[in-house]
Amino acid sequence: MDTEPPLQLRIFDLNCWAIRYLSKLRQERIGLIGDTLSQEGFDLALLQEVWSERDYCELKQKLAAHYPYSHYFKSGVIGSGLCVFSKYPILDTFLYQYSLNGYPYMLQHGDWFCGKAVGLLVIKICGVLFHVYVTHLHAEYCREKDAYLPHRVVQAWELAQFIQHTAKGADVVLLGGDLNMHPGDVGIRLLRGWTGLRDSFADTETFEGCEDGCTLVPANCFTSKMDLQPFPLGIRIDYVLYKGLSHFVVKCDSLVTTTGIAPGKSIPYSDHEAVIATLCVKRRQEAKGLGGSAVEPELVDVVNEARTEVRVGLHAAERQRYTNGRMAILALLLLLLQAAMGLSSLVGWDSQQPFPKFSFSLLSLLATVVLLVSAVLYVFHTIEVRMLQGTEEQMRLALQALQDKLGSL
Amino acid sequence: MDTEPPLQLRIFDLNCWAIRYLSKLRQERIGLIGDTLSQEGFDLALLQEVWSERDYCELKQKLAAHYPYSHYFKSGVIGSGLCVFSKYPILDTFLYQYSLNGYPYMLQHGDWFCGKAVGLLVIKICGVLFHVYVTHLHAEYCREKDAYLPHRVVQAWELAQFIQHTAKGADVVLLGGDLNMHPGDVGIRLLRGWTGLRDSFADTETFEGCEDGCTLVPANCFTSKMDLQPFPLGIRIDYVLYKGLSHFVVKCDSLVTTTGIAPGKSIPYSDHEAVIATLCVKRRQEAKGLGGSAVEPELVDVVNEARTEVRVGLHAAERQRYTNGRMAILALLLLLLQAAMGLSSLVGWDSQQPFPKFSFSLLSLLATVVLLVSAVLYVFHTIEVRMLQGTEEQMRLALQALQDKLGSL
Repeated sequence: MDTEPPLQLRIFDLNCWAIRYLSKLRQERIGLIGDTLSQEGFDLALLQEVWSERDYCELKQKLAAHYPYSHYFKSGVIGSGLCVFSKYPILDTFLYQYSLNGYPYMLQHGDWFCGKAVGLLVIKICGVLFHVYVTHLHAEYCREKDAYLPHRVVQAWELAQFIQHTAKGADVVLLGGDLNMHPGDVGIRLLRGWTGLRDSFADTETFEGCEDGCTLVPANCFTSKMDLQPFPLGIRIDYVLYKGLSHFVVKCDSLVTTTGIAPGKSIPYSDHEAVIATLCVKRRQEAKGLGGSAVEPELVDVVNEARTEVRVGLHAAERQRYTNGRMAILALLLLLLQAAMGLSSLVGWDSQQPFPKFSFSLLSLLATVVLLVSAVLYVFHTIEVRMLQGTEEQMRLALQALQDKLGSL
Repeated sequence: MDTEPPLQLRIFDLNCWAIRYLSKLRQERIGLIGDTLSQEGFDLALLQEVWSERDYCELKQKLAAHYPYSHYFKSGVIGSGLCVFSKYPILDTFLYQYSLNGYPYMLQHGDWFCGKAVGLLVIKICGVLFHVYVTHLHAEYCREKDAYLPHRVVQAWELAQFIQHTAKGADVVLLGGDLNMHPGDVGIRLLRGWTGLRDSFADTETFEGCEDGCTLVPANCFTSKMDLQPFPLGIRIDYVLYKGLSHFVVKCDSLVTTTGIAPGKSIPYSDHEAVIATLCVKRRQEAKGLGGSAVEPELVDVVNEARTEVRVGLHAAERQRYTNGRMAILALLLLLLQAAMGLSSLVGWDSQQPFPKFSFSLLSLLATVVLLVSAVLYVFHTIEVRMLQGTEEQMRLALQALQDKLGSL
């Protein structure tokens, strides 16, 4: 490739918001996305929130001519929603499910049911080995009081660790997806600091699209204007990040986002804006050492900040576990008491049953339901506590290694 | 290292069978294991089934002088049971939880509650980068009718994929653990074929211990003689596997297993035998190509065989999901019917309640419990179906890549 022209790649990234029965104009929008992908002939399309496999199959059929290779990552109850369409053969795939991903009882949010994950695809393009990652992190429903922040920080940490550990053999690393984090949030600083990934918006030569690169904007008719009130320009939560390893250097030639509606159409592709990055991959004159990029001293602060968030989550999870454990014990005691009373009246010790039978049995129904639900939740929150403790310990170890590295410089 | 003597490492691997309140002589055995590890001064000790963190902390305290570095992998409800003690600094750790791991309602087996996983540790020993993996796969409770076989095959596949994707930067790969598979089982052939890992028992220069390298033997007083009846010599399910990458070659100088009791003591360390491998790591004269080892044509058959097992599991999971879905719908219908009857008698349409109130409310209690349990199980089995479908699809893709590779030879 030394004498060859640099490799140019066009990447399309979009959170499609394609939830059956719930997302507005879903079928029209999926049709529109398919048409655009066909016409534009990108090299790679990284899609999120394609929740229905029927939609994926429709896209696959439509795009077979332009994107002969594709993959849908299955996980959770309704699928991960992650899929990729590629012009080039997909050599291998691997899925990593985040160990924490919200709560099953938060039905109105539903993130738990999606089995949020990061999918890895190994793709060779003109002799260059790409490790392409596609992901979607837990949503932020209330920025002021974000109950899911510790889970999202754990996800960002696991994503960073997963990329670091699996990208060693790659020439180029590419990550696309809805990270549900603003550019300055601790999770994204952790992810970028830990992996050395570059932000296509920050690095692009030319940019066209929403101000500040926002991907959730008030101009989009599907976004909630209420949620975006504190951010009149919108927010940027969809990213294309990249880095070149050892022999390769990657640059972003241009970045484009849609601006509320699909170009030349009357409706948007989704409630998110699409991000289209044109990347240029060049072989380096001299290979970079295997030691990777230099460690930034600020990374220590970022890992510490993330660790604090994990600790906050740990306390909350411990509280929840305690509450559920106490509730389960109370319900069990009530049931035992009722059983004893029932038995004593059956054997005739106590001929006069003090409670009407109907309320008595209604109460036992309630106690049984409470016992069952609290026991399951106790188990669930115990797993949450374990995972948060594990992450906290991992971060402690990482900090130590980081400080050793900085100390030896 | 060219002129240096080869690096020699002594690895201790043991499934410790340390379940609080359930495992016999647990505290004595943990004490014994600690004493042996202290006296013998291995380079690495890979332990499984250390379920109680108190036991881990006791070991950590006891071993602080000889093994200053250690790590416990947290996952599941009661912890993964995996821990490692090392003479050399642990630079990084990473945990991958298997996506399938039995059923939460199989309380008597309990594997689900352990959150079975593979732990990765990055350790540098005399300038050689080791990726050390420690794992414990789902147990086999009945070999003739092994309901967990598809889950174990999925775990073996995920383990193989995890090692392949994370070991690229390593000089030496080392895997120790209780794989719960006999040497000829499809899962172990898949793991070894896919990763190119070598079996220390098959490759060792000298061997001392139980016949055939068995690690679950009738001579051990804690093993169930009934379960081992079809195998008079015992079975081999604990392994130390390894491979050298690019610049390094690894050989097994000697392998030792305990033979029913701890050397010089009156009781065994555990119901499993310990495996002690002495490995020799040498720098290769010429680096091996990055392409890795040649693809064996038999691997296609092995992946196909594994895929068939996954398909069998998929059908079983779909049946289970269907049964639970039907049960939930029936319970819901019964509850609705009861609610309608209750309402009609309340508003006086039907002054004569045909059922005694007590049985009526007992029935509603039962219906509610059945509805709750079936709904949760329906969700659980849907996740199982998704993961099995995903693995099957991944294996299909892997087969395709394998056949392309073989075709191009």
